[in-house]
Amino acid sequence: MNGAESVLSTASAAGLTICFANPGTTELPFVSALDQIPEIRPVLCLAEAVCAGAADGYARLAGKPALTLLHLGPGLANGLAYFHNARRAGTPIVNIIGDHASWHLAADAPLTSDIEALAKSVSTWVRSATSAQGLGSDIAEAIYHAAGGIACLIVPADYQAATVHVEVTSPPPRVPQAASDPDIEKVAKALLMNEPNALFLGGAALSAAGLTAAGRIRAATGCTLLHETFAARVERGGNLPNVTRLPYLPAQARETLSSFAAVVLAGAREPVSFFGYEGQPSSFIPTTTAVRVLAPAPQDSFFDVVGALESLADFLGREDARVAPTSGNLPKVPTGRLTPQRMAATIAAVQPANAVIVDESITSGFDYYSLSLNAPRHTYLAPHVGGAIGHGLPLATGAALAAAERPVIVLEGDGSGMYTLQSLWTHAREQLNVTTVICANRQYRILQLELGCEVPADVGSATDTLLNIDRPTLDWVSIARGFGVPARSVQTAQELAAELKRAIAEPGPHLIEAVL
Amino acid sequence: MNGAESVLSTASAAGLTICFANPGTTELPFVSALDQIPEIRPVLCLAEAVCAGAADGYARLAGKPALTLLHLGPGLANGLAYFHNARRAGTPIVNIIGDHASWHLAADAPLTSDIEALAKSVSTWVRSATSAQGLGSDIAEAIYHAAGGIACLIVPADYQAATVHVEVTSPPPRVPQAASDPDIEKVAKALLMNEPNALFLGGAALSAAGLTAAGRIRAATGCTLLHETFAARVERGGNLPNVTRLPYLPAQARETLSSFAAVVLAGAREPVSFFGYEGQPSSFIPTTTAVRVLAPAPQDSFFDVVGALESLADFLGREDARVAPTSGNLPKVPTGRLTPQRMAATIAAVQPANAVIVDESITSGFDYYSLSLNAPRHTYLAPHVGGAIGHGLPLATGAALAAAERPVIVLEGDGSGMYTLQSLWTHAREQLNVTTVICANRQYRILQLELGCEVPADVGSATDTLLNIDRPTLDWVSIARGFGVPARSVQTAQELAAELKRAIAEPGPHLIEAVL
Repeated sequence: MNGAESVLSTASAAGLTICFANPGTTELPFVSALDQIPEIRPVLCLAEAVCAGAADGYARLAGKPALTLLHLGPGLANGLAYFHNARRAGTPIVNIIGDHASWHLAADAPLTSDIEALAKSVSTWVRSATSAQGLGSDIAEAIYHAAGGIACLIVPADYQAATVHVEVTSPPPRVPQAASDPDIEKVAKALLMNEPNALFLGGAALSAAGLTAAGRIRAATGCTLLHETFAARVERGGNLPNVTRLPYLPAQARETLSSFAAVVLAGAREPVSFFGYEGQPSSFIPTTTAVRVLAPAPQDSFFDVVGALESLADFLGREDARVAPTSGNLPKVPTGRLTPQRMAATIAAVQPANAVIVDESITSGFDYYSLSLNAPRHTYLAPHVGGAIGHGLPLATGAALAAAERPVIVLEGDGSGMYTLQSLWTHAREQLNVTTVICANRQYRILQLELGCEVPADVGSATDTLLNIDRPTLDWVSIARGFGVPARSVQTAQELAAELKRAIAEPGPHLIEAVL
Repeated sequence: MNGAESVLSTASAAGLTICFANPGTTELPFVSALDQIPEIRPVLCLAEAVCAGAADGYARLAGKPALTLLHLGPGLANGLAYFHNARRAGTPIVNIIGDHASWHLAADAPLTSDIEALAKSVSTWVRSATSAQGLGSDIAEAIYHAAGGIACLIVPADYQAATVHVEVTSPPPRVPQAASDPDIEKVAKALLMNEPNALFLGGAALSAAGLTAAGRIRAATGCTLLHETFAARVERGGNLPNVTRLPYLPAQARETLSSFAAVVLAGAREPVSFFGYEGQPSSFIPTTTAVRVLAPAPQDSFFDVVGALESLADFLGREDARVAPTSGNLPKVPTGRLTPQRMAATIAAVQPANAVIVDESITSGFDYYSLSLNAPRHTYLAPHVGGAIGHGLPLATGAALAAAERPVIVLEGDGSGMYTLQSLWTHAREQLNVTTVICANRQYRILQLELGCEVPADVGSATDTLLNIDRPTLDWVSIARGFGVPARSVQTAQELAAELKRAIAEPGPHLIEAVL
């Protein structure tokens, strides 16, 4: 067995089964090792940004880490933006980063760079391996720490190839921190003594178990259920309690949070403004509101959020929450030329049960979340938890691989989608059941809104150059077909509905350009 | 005047005229400032990797920095791989990186990250601005330091928007370090006392002036002229002296350097192996060879390399070198189905005078450099000086903007081209005279060679998955057209020659998929 094989055998023993890779010369022993260890499935991505986003999407659905295999500093650098999002989401990821042979590092060859510095910017754990023999325990530690975020193991090429004598053992599972009884009691008192009050949910609190417990707490206390604006994963529909999403726009967010005497955080940080606006404080919660932490956010601690919610529900004494199953009406498929609102309504109306929705529609899908309130049971993923744009297509790649039996629908801006369109090739190669809806408004609409330039004629030449992507028009149909993904362009809501149904019914990937 | 305007006015006063941008909310004051300062041309790139590569290409041709405008940590991260290459090339670049409002940083909002840590990994100078009033002098310092590499100025959004009272002044030009007379004398003695000997050239030594001086030194001493394997920019043809490129393959490189009693470095480091191979030392130069530094590499020092070469030539007493103009034959356009060799010969045969050649063909263009030895006067750029792949298309973007009157021809691997295909849209939008030849061998050929797996049947399933990109086949013609770039696919050398001539004659960008 060589070092690379000891790494992959240990990962396999720990239950890891997939590796998103874009290898180079310094990772070739790992490539060969993957031939020897068929339990780990290699998935080629044409750029490392796709590896990073896919690893995030996979873990959000599978609930366990994916491996990535990346080529030195530049390979890691190309994935950093989406690792940043994954860090903010608290997603478990194990990055294996190849490096020069240990004895070659001193030569400062062209590809040498400070890999550790880059890795530390997004990771909970980073190690440069110092021997071949130690690689098995290195990766075991990486997997242990990845339970709470991103772990990076940097492996010189000579250690990968060197013979090792080790017994492959599975690393012990990491035990999340638990809320103490006194803490539960304090939070319960805060809820019971301050009214009105709210539970502010994030991370695992938005899982089916977390939401069920939150529903019991609501039944016991009458609290309002809110969740963070960009949630890594929300289970919705069926008989899960509905939770109000905190609005993105600061004025609306502040208004939503203005009236509570107490806010209890469960798997979420105290919400702050995405950007700073002059004359407005960073925090959305009034200083007069009592803020209590039931469970910290995943980016801050590896914590048993669901356990804390369940303990609180138990303490409050509600065995069941008698949550009413979703009973409201779904929007009907509208008629006429597509608008952002009609596009959102059409998707909400058509999405099948058990869908995974990846929503990076930015402004175009503004209404989707509320319109899909009564859609059948589905999983909703906000890709850009950390604000790095372009994460949607690779996130869907990973999600589809983790949940092959579920239809994945991506709402993707035409601006954001351009960052990582290489994902489409992996959709085609792996024949993933991903339907990508490109919201083709041909502008960076969010920036126009931020700048307050509603009327194109009002803007200067540079603003026009930088905030519009309409010259030339991107032909997403031609591009998608070039990657091997069947594609159509639609202009009306009815066409969109028909194409969506067809795409979802037909196995493999599809792309629909929704011209707005 | 606000802070952003003071930055751009100062940059304009310093002679900077272009800004490769992909802005976000935290850079909007800069976007508006560009409306006010039309002397600086904004160029939109659909992803920051394109901004980074284009800034490198622009500066290599223009000999002065471009600005970039990037969105916080993730925006910078997306460009890091090509900034890594630019660092290794010693390219001057000024990055303006927006950040949250200064008072909002403490909130650790989602997009907050350690921008400085990322910037330091590639830069000679990094500063986080601490006031609006100081921005003018901050950018002046950045421009000063960018003469020797990458300078990053991180600018909180509130400082960009705040009113400032400053007088815009042009920063003083940075004076490069010069070789001292005793140093020149020592190098001259080393050349005269050790034979055979070689001048090993890099950086500005490969400019017309540098090569002319090197030719005089060769005439005086009989030294061999060599240059580094991946040179940022080489002037070739006409009556410039020919210089042998150090081969990439270690055995050949070692053989090339095995026989010299002395090697003098001018604008280059002592060459080392790109990767470490077991049983072979990192260095290519035998320990018995005397190595002398006439001028350090650009990544190590801001140094007057050309001046040092000219002083050495003067010291050696040769007023002119009587370099014979290029007189050898060019390859003829071959016949038959394209092979890598035929593709390379066709391009060398067809390329017009004054062309800019961007060569990221990796294995496919292996023969191009020697075949184009007698091509008319041209500029040759190796994108991946630091080994980060995918730099070719954005490098061409910047080069074409710096030299609008010159035809730019890109030899691009189909694997490497996939990293930054978004560049094609900027080629189309700016109607750049860039002809992209995609070397479509549908594999990561370089990795197959490194692994020694010549026969596909020999490899395991994972190796096959990770080292071939043929399933599905990328349709570059469909993709390029989707970006607004006219495209054709060719299968024979004659077709390639015809398409190349047509593409070069016709204004604007073109893409030719050369099926190998």
